[in-house]
Amino acid sequence: VNPKQQPDLSTSTSHVRVRYAETDQMGVVYYANYFVWFEVGRTDLLRTMGGTYRQLESDGLFLPVIEASCTYSRPSHYDDELEIRTEGELLSPIRVRFAYEVTRRADRVITATGHTVHAAVDRNGRPCRLPEPVQRALRSDGSAERRRRSSDPRHAAVRHRRPSLP
Amino acid sequence: VNPKQQPDLSTSTSHVRVRYAETDQMGVVYYANYFVWFEVGRTDLLRTMGGTYRQLESDGLFLPVIEASCTYSRPSHYDDELEIRTEGELLSPIRVRFAYEVTRRADRVITATGHTVHAAVDRNGRPCRLPEPVQRALRSDGSAERRRRSSDPRHAAVRHRRPSLP
Amino acid sequence: VNPKQQPDLSTSTSHVRVRYAETDQMGVVYYANYFVWFEVGRTDLLRTMGGTYRQLESDGLFLPVIEASCTYSRPSHYDDELEIRTEGELLSPIRVRFAYEVTRRADRVITATGHTVHAAVDRNGRPCRLPEPVQRALRSDGSAERRRRSSDPRHAAVRHRRPSLP
Amino acid sequence: VNPKQQPDLSTSTSHVRVRYAETDQMGVVYYANYFVWFEVGRTDLLRTMGGTYRQLESDGLFLPVIEASCTYSRPSHYDDELEIRTEGELLSPIRVRFAYEVTRRADRVITATGHTVHAAVDRNGRPCRLPEPVQRALRSDGSAERRRRSSDPRHAAVRHRRPSLP
Repeated sequence: VNPKQQPDLSTSTSHVRVRYAETDQMGVVYYANYFVWFEVGRTDLLRTMGGTYRQLESDGLFLPVIEASCTYSRPSHYDDELEIRTEGELLSPIRVRFAYEVTRRADRVITATGHTVHAAVDRNGRPCRLPEPVQRALRSDGSAERRRRSSDPRHAAVRHRRPSLP
Repeated sequence: VNPKQQPDLSTSTSHVRVRYAETDQMGVVYYANYFVWFEVGRTDLLRTMGGTYRQLESDGLFLPVIEASCTYSRPSHYDDELEIRTEGELLSPIRVRFAYEVTRRADRVITATGHTVHAAVDRNGRPCRLPEPVQRALRSDGSAERRRRSSDPRHAAVRHRRPSLP
Repeated sequence: VNPKQQPDLSTSTSHVRVRYAETDQMGVVYYANYFVWFEVGRTDLLRTMGGTYRQLESDGLFLPVIEASCTYSRPSHYDDELEIRTEGELLSPIRVRFAYEVTRRADRVITATGHTVHAAVDRNGRPCRLPEPVQRALRSDGSAERRRRSSDPRHAAVRHRRPSLP
Repeated sequence: VNPKQQPDLSTSTSHVRVRYAETDQMGVVYYANYFVWFEVGRTDLLRTMGGTYRQLESDGLFLPVIEASCTYSRPSHYDDELEIRTEGELLSPIRVRFAYEVTRRADRVITATGHTVHAAVDRNGRPCRLPEPVQRALRSDGSAERRRRSSDPRHAAVRHRRPSLP
């Protein structure tokens, strides 16, 4: 059985074109707007997985953001075509993490990377398990988790602190 | 009885400072953001009148915008202090109109004027009468209506079309 | 010569999907965001005409908005696919008007219509003629102007005021 | 010499009231808008320090964001009055870090904390030293740095990894 033959349900690619509204007087995209594109990315990822976030909300499940970050490596400009690669990862039955990479299509330069963490809650804001199909799709083959752990210095630190058993 | 001695409940003044996020690559405020300031203006006007829009919504009354316009006379810039003068007018028990004037505080230059019209609806989107106190405050002394009719070219046109009686 | 055989350079169709960021607590799209979609519409229209607004700016021509309006007929919701039909019209060599119609793709319901008027200015904000090809494309066959005049009540008023010659 | 007697130039407090535009259909503030408030915070902090970011840009110095993060602990709602406490810290002569804490004024509940890191660049995007007075004000008494190091788990991790000398 070759895991590569399974379609990877936990990644997706979205496209946006930079709007004038999204620029600021520095002549580049205002930094907060990347988080809006991240939202476009995770909306598309959930659609790829066979559902929609709209449907999840209709069913009474919400995914408020509890943590968000972005690292900006290159500016993006008005009218640029950008590609957002989104990767989902189940942290627990009530918590999901998305990682994002924003690339300029013209020259394949990465302009920003980031992540968000979401809590699954019901209409009353109480923690609530993600539906099984979503959990399965996000669990996928664990590659997201592996990639993340090997590149995040915090995880590196954590590993280094573990005593090596004799 | 002097109507000028009544406080004019149907006007208010708000202040905003232009945020970097609100500028665009032309180095001025992006045009759609004036409509956000208009919202700041009408929120403050309703507070002046003794209630809050937040409370109206809690009580089941919503005021979706059904018409909006803005005329831009001068650009405004990052960090400018602006003054928004808002004037409310009751068009009918289920319809309200707000007019706005945005002025740069430093030199008293008017940068934009505009208006919005709102329908009063209940939670199900059905037309619904504004609460009596709001109607009274907006009805005020009719000065808003008089000023508007004398300056709006459409109303001028309407008047011109009326046959002058012999 | 059949004018219908010319491609109509002065209209275009754009597509957007409603972002969560664009909704407000009423559960519908916040009214100012339609003006951002109008910008998407006119950016695409200029592209259709063979240039880009980005290039116009690089060449030193800017089109700040001097007037904007929108009439909202139906709400639009998160994740809705919308179609923006944009029509351009040359008002003068230094002034252009765009009209917009926003339609929900699922049921072809019109959610909003609006317009913007733009002044053509140079880097120093001085009035400046639009490039000839843009003027030509916008002038087109005049159908935009005809449609507008026949539907706008203000123009109707103007016509009614004209004396009918004996 | 008591460092406490110096005014702490590197912290400031700003106030915003939540706009309807900033909410989303979950009935709370959309997560990206906190980054806009962070911008309000650092603009005010620079003003506290005796200059303005507007003036820095006029003088040819820009502070693009290269890193941003936010942790959301409680939602904030339309019309809430919020307080943004901002703390600046000089990371190097060409790099500055701001930390933010957003508190609901009514009940003093912290709704979010975050930070941004900025590179100082000139008009051509080349690294460029911050003006001396800004460096001095941000260097302050080092309390920001001390507080940060003692609470950030990453720094904790780093410290733990250092071998304790015999």
